[in-house]
Amino acid sequence: MEYWFHEMHTLNVKLGIRVKEEIAHITSEYQDIHLFNTYDFGKLLVIDGAVQTTVKDEFIYHEMIVHPPMLTHPDPKRILIIGGGDGGAAREALKHNPDEVHIVEIDEKVVELSRKYLPEISCAYDDPRVHLHIQNGVEFIKNGEKFDVIIVDSTDPVGPAAGLFEKGFYVNLKKVLKDGGVISQQCGTPFYHPEEVCKVKTILEKIFRYVKIYLAYIPTYPSGMWSFIIASDVPIEKRRKVKFKTKYYNDEIYYSSMALPNFIKEKCKNYK
Amino acid sequence: MEYWFHEMHTLNVKLGIRVKEEIAHITSEYQDIHLFNTYDFGKLLVIDGAVQTTVKDEFIYHEMIVHPPMLTHPDPKRILIIGGGDGGAAREALKHNPDEVHIVEIDEKVVELSRKYLPEISCAYDDPRVHLHIQNGVEFIKNGEKFDVIIVDSTDPVGPAAGLFEKGFYVNLKKVLKDGGVISQQCGTPFYHPEEVCKVKTILEKIFRYVKIYLAYIPTYPSGMWSFIIASDVPIEKRRKVKFKTKYYNDEIYYSSMALPNFIKEKCKNYK
Repeated sequence: MEYWFHEMHTLNVKLGIRVKEEIAHITSEYQDIHLFNTYDFGKLLVIDGAVQTTVKDEFIYHEMIVHPPMLTHPDPKRILIIGGGDGGAAREALKHNPDEVHIVEIDEKVVELSRKYLPEISCAYDDPRVHLHIQNGVEFIKNGEKFDVIIVDSTDPVGPAAGLFEKGFYVNLKKVLKDGGVISQQCGTPFYHPEEVCKVKTILEKIFRYVKIYLAYIPTYPSGMWSFIIASDVPIEKRRKVKFKTKYYNDEIYYSSMALPNFIKEKCKNYK
Repeated sequence: MEYWFHEMHTLNVKLGIRVKEEIAHITSEYQDIHLFNTYDFGKLLVIDGAVQTTVKDEFIYHEMIVHPPMLTHPDPKRILIIGGGDGGAAREALKHNPDEVHIVEIDEKVVELSRKYLPEISCAYDDPRVHLHIQNGVEFIKNGEKFDVIIVDSTDPVGPAAGLFEKGFYVNLKKVLKDGGVISQQCGTPFYHPEEVCKVKTILEKIFRYVKIYLAYIPTYPSGMWSFIIASDVPIEKRRKVKFKTKYYNDEIYYSSMALPNFIKEKCKNYK
């Protein structure tokens, strides 16, 4: 018998991934979490029916949410990751040799599962510079500690992460960003939901001087076209070159990922 | 009852698109052709089980296979499209104001179906500058007529298009390319089949002085990451700006689409 996991990308489009076995299934206080072993993508983490990460293509998402903001900052030492309980963003952030990486994950079950079954991704937790806070990111940033780079690596804007896409959150986020600091956030697919990324861009432009959408190819995410957003009060420029081995990111990709197809530019231009 | 079309992207990955109705189904001399009306993508053309084009996202593929080679050439007047029976590549080529566009499609059923049911795409056939040849592209180019730009818009290298990915074909292709001419070809997904695009690149580099792989986001194609290849004996540079309205391509995308992720660069570097 064949066993398939299907994610509904829209009501009328779905991606099927053939599964060898279910490794774990936990219903936490916040969400429904599955871990599968698959034929083509290795281990697959699913939260509330949506692919979060697979061992085969996670490098794309994690490199692209981390390296552009880290290389925009001249010398990032204190890093905050909101969400990112699997540890992948922290793993990439550590490659920039920071002093501290703080992960603020609301759901400790995501951390437990990742540490137990996804060591390729969660290995960052073994590093003494990584500090885990099991807390709501919206609350955490009210404590006033400041950071050079803040990475918002959350699930989509429906469910427990909804508050991470609202204006009040970004206003508080800016308060805990040091001068010259840079933020990045995953922003969904502009192919199916262009209004989501335009909305976030419009909000951020009221708070930060420089805001850019950038894109990456993520095969297991809806449409394969994924967006991120980067914002700062200093111009968004590549201030440093990458000095370690990467599988997706390289110095050309910094700017090329910010070159948007016309249909996205126009959607955002007309967004009110 | 729900009615879904599924394309197998690999043995273990599939994309499902919900269908309203089947508009046509023809088994031609060469292939099995379906035309569906779908909920999210409008009309969907399927050949031998693989999505060829949908009304919603065809603009990405057709703009990207046509505009980079056309804008690399300083003044393209005679255009050859091998494959492309739906007319979409010709429609985009006409925007550059050429004298002649020749479409060489092996399967007249693809042309008939497209002209009957896909006027948004096949409208190019109404232009007197467009000349249709129902013939095998491999044979057509032996007649010696020369072109400024040649676009190889075929199905994948399995089935009737296999001969369009072989060295002998490219050698003959070069013979019918005028001095300073440029070719482009669709080359599949480097995510699932990096060796295919590296193989084509390696062959082309033995025949042309300049060869570059470039990428576009195509949501209905496997992995969403699609590759094209451009080759010429003159340097591959954007010689002209785009002077008409586009939905995907713009002048930044010319170069940014050629910035490849490291995993593709490394695969090609190590390809023998």
